[in-house]
Amino acid sequence: MSDLLKPMPHIVTTGIATFADDLVEQGLPVTRVDWRPPPPGTEGDLADVALDARRVDANEMAVRRMLAAGAELVDVRPAREVLGLEVGQFLHAGPPIGWERASGPLRGALIGAVLFEGIAETPDAAESWLGAGAGTGTGTSTGAPSEPSPLRHAHSPELAPCHSRGGVGPMAGVVSPSMWLFELRDPNSGRTSWCSLNEGLGKVLRYGAYGPDVITRLRWMAEVLGPVLQRAVRRSGPVDVKAIIAQMLHMGDEGHNRNRAGTLMLLRELLPALIENGEDAKALADVVRFVSGNDHFFLNLVMPACKLAAGAAAGVAGSSVVTVMARNGTDFGIQTAGTGDRWFTAPAHTPEGLFLAGYGPEDANPDIGDSAITETAGVGGFAMAAAPAIARLVGGTAAGAVAATGLMYEITLAENPALTIPALDFRGTPTGIDVTRVVRTGVLPQINTGMAGRVAGTGQVGAGLVTPPAECFTQALTALAELARDAAGPQDGDDLR
Amino acid sequence: MSDLLKPMPHIVTTGIATFADDLVEQGLPVTRVDWRPPPPGTEGDLADVALDARRVDANEMAVRRMLAAGAELVDVRPAREVLGLEVGQFLHAGPPIGWERASGPLRGALIGAVLFEGIAETPDAAESWLGAGAGTGTGTSTGAPSEPSPLRHAHSPELAPCHSRGGVGPMAGVVSPSMWLFELRDPNSGRTSWCSLNEGLGKVLRYGAYGPDVITRLRWMAEVLGPVLQRAVRRSGPVDVKAIIAQMLHMGDEGHNRNRAGTLMLLRELLPALIENGEDAKALADVVRFVSGNDHFFLNLVMPACKLAAGAAAGVAGSSVVTVMARNGTDFGIQTAGTGDRWFTAPAHTPEGLFLAGYGPEDANPDIGDSAITETAGVGGFAMAAAPAIARLVGGTAAGAVAATGLMYEITLAENPALTIPALDFRGTPTGIDVTRVVRTGVLPQINTGMAGRVAGTGQVGAGLVTPPAECFTQALTALAELARDAAGPQDGDDLR
Repeated sequence: MSDLLKPMPHIVTTGIATFADDLVEQGLPVTRVDWRPPPPGTEGDLADVALDARRVDANEMAVRRMLAAGAELVDVRPAREVLGLEVGQFLHAGPPIGWERASGPLRGALIGAVLFEGIAETPDAAESWLGAGAGTGTGTSTGAPSEPSPLRHAHSPELAPCHSRGGVGPMAGVVSPSMWLFELRDPNSGRTSWCSLNEGLGKVLRYGAYGPDVITRLRWMAEVLGPVLQRAVRRSGPVDVKAIIAQMLHMGDEGHNRNRAGTLMLLRELLPALIENGEDAKALADVVRFVSGNDHFFLNLVMPACKLAAGAAAGVAGSSVVTVMARNGTDFGIQTAGTGDRWFTAPAHTPEGLFLAGYGPEDANPDIGDSAITETAGVGGFAMAAAPAIARLVGGTAAGAVAATGLMYEITLAENPALTIPALDFRGTPTGIDVTRVVRTGVLPQINTGMAGRVAGTGQVGAGLVTPPAECFTQALTALAELARDAAGPQDGDDLR
Repeated sequence: MSDLLKPMPHIVTTGIATFADDLVEQGLPVTRVDWRPPPPGTEGDLADVALDARRVDANEMAVRRMLAAGAELVDVRPAREVLGLEVGQFLHAGPPIGWERASGPLRGALIGAVLFEGIAETPDAAESWLGAGAGTGTGTSTGAPSEPSPLRHAHSPELAPCHSRGGVGPMAGVVSPSMWLFELRDPNSGRTSWCSLNEGLGKVLRYGAYGPDVITRLRWMAEVLGPVLQRAVRRSGPVDVKAIIAQMLHMGDEGHNRNRAGTLMLLRELLPALIENGEDAKALADVVRFVSGNDHFFLNLVMPACKLAAGAAAGVAGSSVVTVMARNGTDFGIQTAGTGDRWFTAPAHTPEGLFLAGYGPEDANPDIGDSAITETAGVGGFAMAAAPAIARLVGGTAAGAVAATGLMYEITLAENPALTIPALDFRGTPTGIDVTRVVRTGVLPQINTGMAGRVAGTGQVGAGLVTPPAECFTQALTALAELARDAAGPQDGDDLR
């Protein structure tokens, strides 16, 4: 024993920092190893997923597909054409939910959509109609038939997630048949996705506002904006959205809360066709003012482009890559490549950040929207290092933005060679969130987001930062572990047949 | 003596680093003080300028004026209207120069301008006409009268700097009467400035190319682009160029070699007016394609905006603030607030950077153009930290770009609260170069620049980084010291009158 201690022992610590701190205070040299035990209860699942023979190849395939996906804007059409959506059917952001559990902004947006579709004449009537029949959020109506509409015949309301139809909606994400959608296509695989048109900021439907100005704007978007954009896209041919995303990351945008350069580049792409189509000058000038006056217009193209990328990884058995992160204002839900369309949900956190004048933390609704698809595909909060000016919108510092991106490399499997960050000497964005890495490190995905008012009708109250609840990832891990055991099962013992 | 050395002496070093390095190698603790003796021969001038009783107030006034200057685009008109320029008169970048000392790209641009103005029919004839009469660069013709032009009557050629007429020209900076100019005004002071319209990259007049495509493009710019922009600006009213510069620094542009976001924002400002003016659809689409397809289009608005700022500081007696940095391809010249229109010149350095395919360092002409007015006003190379993607164009790393801006704070007097850099947590751009600080520290202003081919007719060969020759600043210091002594003179002894 005395021999063992004769040379000064070298101390190596793992786990909680105070173990090492105490020794350092006593003047002893310490080597710290950045290792922590897995969260209690996850050890078995982590081991089973780690030992899944399919995992390495499956994750490689999932990430390869994600990186290879392209995204072109190919058309602009109403939801009734794109999706066959009927009057009384509504899509929304996040995992499935019914009226009773719906948050204020989702309720507000649904009320607005009912008014916009002419199913009810007043917010109260709209709320009654929705409350009577849209309670379960299973994707089909199970409510009692509503009173016959005085305005427009509609089934009782049906709610379903945008993701269940292959698309995405920002914030409340409510889509009704008369709303127009961007249609995107991956030219490599032929897969498609879609997203609604962006209304601008402040009191808008997606933030839960439903006043007369909101409905009037939606009408103009359906009657003027949508058709003008449709003619421009059809004349210009496909617009390479992925190429614009690559550029915007070099121009101070991160593609979730900053889309300023992206919006201007979209306008640049469409302008010659807009002009040559011989549109009415007033209508065209209105469209150009609306698009160029809304720095977030391009978000609604980044989102479906990211859906095409993340969705390309879906359905790869044995892969622990996250393919969806989405929130409905009540629950946060994720899906993974190896677990199909199954949602893993937990109560959504409330973002922290900066507030518009007159609002504070008590006004903020929990996290809402499909826009976390941007982080799922490696931009948005994952690319904050590309957008130091975001600090003015969501809080924090330039160094904090760089650190946030740096941390995301810890939980992702790849760096996207097509989407690079100049401030990191053109390092690729951290892409392909691995459920096992999230659980193992305790590092949660960093999401930039807008904040909706808690109360229906309020609109936007701020913008900030948020993370998913860790439970989504532990649940997904458990499901992946079960599938891993099932897959390993037949090879596990002697098969006597 | 032994008492003195009993406690270990603490060594403080200044000057050359090796003094300290040797001691460190011997295991001695050293405190380094970042002080170097003034460059030999400058001590007296530095002292006289430093002791100039007017200096502190004068520099404060010069910088205050520089920061306060606004910049609005108010009109687009031909040079003959804006400046009363006549056939045979040419303006050029940098300090005064004549044909014999003119570099290849300046000669090439002059040849092109002579062809464009219809004074000669062939490059050879243009060169003969220029060589016969434009030898001195005094701003008035002193050459022998040329042969009567077969094409268009012209005096013998007259050359003068753009700066002598209150404007700026990129690269060769050649302006002839039929070329159209942006006219800018400082709404606070009413002062005006101007710059030519940007032709795009590659084989273009300002880089010294003069082929038929160059002349054809200049004709279209005079016949279509200029008039269409004129009608748009007149309809839209003044465009706030300074506000766009503030935004572009948040979008990855530094305003000299990256003007991508600025160009898109200019287009956004003018679009409604462009559309509502009822322009011919083909002409309008051509204009929109030309502007939006040229990421440098907005440089020609940043430059006169910076001229308005830097020029606002001109004429403040006792101020050592630099008001002009400009190069003609042979000489680099500067002017200061305290020395009026006097040029302090020395041979221009050749930029180092990255080359277009097929070109190398041996093809590069020495530094050329009035575009260093951007650095004079605190953007361009001084704001590189705002534009990490510039490394792909001029070489270097993202950290190098941040360091370059950091160094410029050492030689400037102010941080511009209106032009901020997100990556530095919105620190203002380093503004107001002080001649005494440049001489005292040996830190030279950092300039981003395009590189023209040495041989007339070549066009652009690359882009890179360059500094002014130090002699410009020591000469200016000497002149400021003489003026300081003159100003101090009458108070120096007893005045017996």
